[in-house]
Amino acid sequence: MARIVMKFGGTSVGDVARIKNVARRVRAERERGNQVAVAVSAMSGVTNQLVAYCNDVAALYDQREYDTVVATGEQVTTGLLAIALQDIGVPARSWQGWQVPIVSDDAHGKARIVDIKGDALIASMEKGEVPVVAGFQGVGPGYRISTLGRGGSDTTAVALAAALKADRCDIYTDVDGVYTTDPRIVKTAKKLSKITYEEMLEMASLGTKVLQTRSVEMAMKHRVRVQVLSSFTEPPPAHSNELPGTLVCDEDEIMEKALVSGIAYSRDEAKVTLVGVSDRPGIAAGIFGPLSEANINVDMIVQNISQDGSTTDMTFTVGKADLARAEQVINDKLKIPYKALKTDKNVVKVSVIGVGMRSHAGVAQTMFKALADKGINIQVISTSEIKVSVLIAEDYTELALRALHTAYGLDAA
Amino acid sequence: MARIVMKFGGTSVGDVARIKNVARRVRAERERGNQVAVAVSAMSGVTNQLVAYCNDVAALYDQREYDTVVATGEQVTTGLLAIALQDIGVPARSWQGWQVPIVSDDAHGKARIVDIKGDALIASMEKGEVPVVAGFQGVGPGYRISTLGRGGSDTTAVALAAALKADRCDIYTDVDGVYTTDPRIVKTAKKLSKITYEEMLEMASLGTKVLQTRSVEMAMKHRVRVQVLSSFTEPPPAHSNELPGTLVCDEDEIMEKALVSGIAYSRDEAKVTLVGVSDRPGIAAGIFGPLSEANINVDMIVQNISQDGSTTDMTFTVGKADLARAEQVINDKLKIPYKALKTDKNVVKVSVIGVGMRSHAGVAQTMFKALADKGINIQVISTSEIKVSVLIAEDYTELALRALHTAYGLDAA
Repeated sequence: MARIVMKFGGTSVGDVARIKNVARRVRAERERGNQVAVAVSAMSGVTNQLVAYCNDVAALYDQREYDTVVATGEQVTTGLLAIALQDIGVPARSWQGWQVPIVSDDAHGKARIVDIKGDALIASMEKGEVPVVAGFQGVGPGYRISTLGRGGSDTTAVALAAALKADRCDIYTDVDGVYTTDPRIVKTAKKLSKITYEEMLEMASLGTKVLQTRSVEMAMKHRVRVQVLSSFTEPPPAHSNELPGTLVCDEDEIMEKALVSGIAYSRDEAKVTLVGVSDRPGIAAGIFGPLSEANINVDMIVQNISQDGSTTDMTFTVGKADLARAEQVINDKLKIPYKALKTDKNVVKVSVIGVGMRSHAGVAQTMFKALADKGINIQVISTSEIKVSVLIAEDYTELALRALHTAYGLDAA
Repeated sequence: MARIVMKFGGTSVGDVARIKNVARRVRAERERGNQVAVAVSAMSGVTNQLVAYCNDVAALYDQREYDTVVATGEQVTTGLLAIALQDIGVPARSWQGWQVPIVSDDAHGKARIVDIKGDALIASMEKGEVPVVAGFQGVGPGYRISTLGRGGSDTTAVALAAALKADRCDIYTDVDGVYTTDPRIVKTAKKLSKITYEEMLEMASLGTKVLQTRSVEMAMKHRVRVQVLSSFTEPPPAHSNELPGTLVCDEDEIMEKALVSGIAYSRDEAKVTLVGVSDRPGIAAGIFGPLSEANINVDMIVQNISQDGSTTDMTFTVGKADLARAEQVINDKLKIPYKALKTDKNVVKVSVIGVGMRSHAGVAQTMFKALADKGINIQVISTSEIKVSVLIAEDYTELALRALHTAYGLDAA
């Protein structure tokens, strides 16, 4: 017998028919002999409606009241799913954040889970019941209702799995797993059966929307095995031990580590170049200090070798949404002299990710060669232990993804 | 300084514009120098949608889960109204039933309030805040969310007023008060400035929809002064002490007691006659026992004088919705012999109500004469200390109401 937390997102519980479908899936998991706890999101569209109400009432609002309003979306789903489960013979009851309790801090609207008391839920499961827990919400100081911010239901599910010492946390969504790259662009992209926490974290922070970054961090911290799978495909037969989705897990659990597990890309960055900066100690601090004070995140940074011994060029990337503010900060606040400021929004960051590259040389070289063979110019390079990222012109996105997917032997047979 | 509970029903908070309007009304009440607590219903239509979801998921459902789902309607309104109040400079916060707490019994779906701990709300008001409390809901045993049944928000408001020792409970609705009779039928109907609890209770149980019977009972029990008024008319100026609506209060507070305060009618009853019942001791028990066991309420009862010394006719009324079941019980369960069973749905019960009739004779006589003058035949009569009711043919409803309204001198000048 295993203990499993099943999490269903907004599209999976989008209407009454889908909620009934989810109930049948929960029953099937229970019929495999497993203990099950469920975490649910609001029915799709509901949260947006509730947020719109708040915005219509006032431009600026008390986050605690916002939380009181929007947390009702998940509450409705818990009650309806409990009814649907009971209706097909599965004992079940709904749990709100304050009932469990899922204790959060007071950062209303984007609260963090501080503690989950799992005793009541474990007792419920031990007597054969399925607890249906409201995702996305908790209870903050003063018994006020809190919410965890967008995508918080994933975090609830992983935190629940940790608190309940669950064997696995299954995140049901509208895709059937994590792919080697975006299958809408690269037709030969393959679904991964397993991926490490570290790789998934890089994938998530680089724009792969399957799991929220925070939930992956929490899974990694508490070593919660997370499976990403679809609620719209047929489940495997009852006797099968095969996992239909992608398992996000510890490196030790993956026998054959691929050199590169996936290729991610992000169109969210813009390039900034300061030309002719005087080349002396302290210039990096002089440039990035004011940007940091303005709360602008800088990602990739390249400082060219000084051409004339006295000036250099400094290139870096910021979020596209921050570009205008970054230009303003540079114009207004920078005390360091420079000749010119150039910016470019038509760039894309392409990254190859794999824990295998820790122990293998030549991974970056393969990337550079594959791009050069297609005539793609690399503008900026940055590397981490398990990732190599390059900035290239946005027009080459698809070409680069396909070339790299082939170069690393990821194409499906 | 007075302490006032203001209650706003579903149409009063039906959309964002109306919620903002309610916020301004609350601010105006506060600017009169009063302490204010607010109780709110769900936005109109929301509760029906939530109930429909439950019905769509399963024909029979766990009332505790039903309560979890439908209680969200009021929760949304509390948050939005708190935001609207803050937005116009009024400190405010939302309170759910479990936060106050409003403790209920475990009769989920139609729970009764057992206790309200007013301390936190009083502390909130004392520091200048407006507590916005979710109507209709409480917290039952095991910290489960409960609801009080349809119209329960009125009950919440009155119970809150009692717990907070409020000077008055203002129930805002879509009519501007209680009228001497239905103004849609009698154009000369007048709004009453005051009415006693006892009279209001008769009016409410006779189908005047302004206040829910349970809330009037609670007001009478705890001597809570209740004002019924409209949220759609202009409030009186700040310096005015005039109450714009109808005050439901203790008899002692009403200086000039009218002989008859109002004329109510109910089309919800049907007449049943058992012809030729043998006239011997125990026949009433033999007829009404089986009906009572079947949970059928019997209202007016008339036993004719025995015509031939051995048989009599027994006439009574039951709710129209119960008529078919009543016929079945009489056919199947009655051990007493009778000659024939006659039923009539085309009847209306018209009642004149007034605490003044306790000390005055001739009130019934005025009624009988006024009806006789219009050629209206009285089929059944029943009386209580403050009420005379007659059953007449339904076609005569409007004629009877107008005749009685004039006969008791209730017509507006």
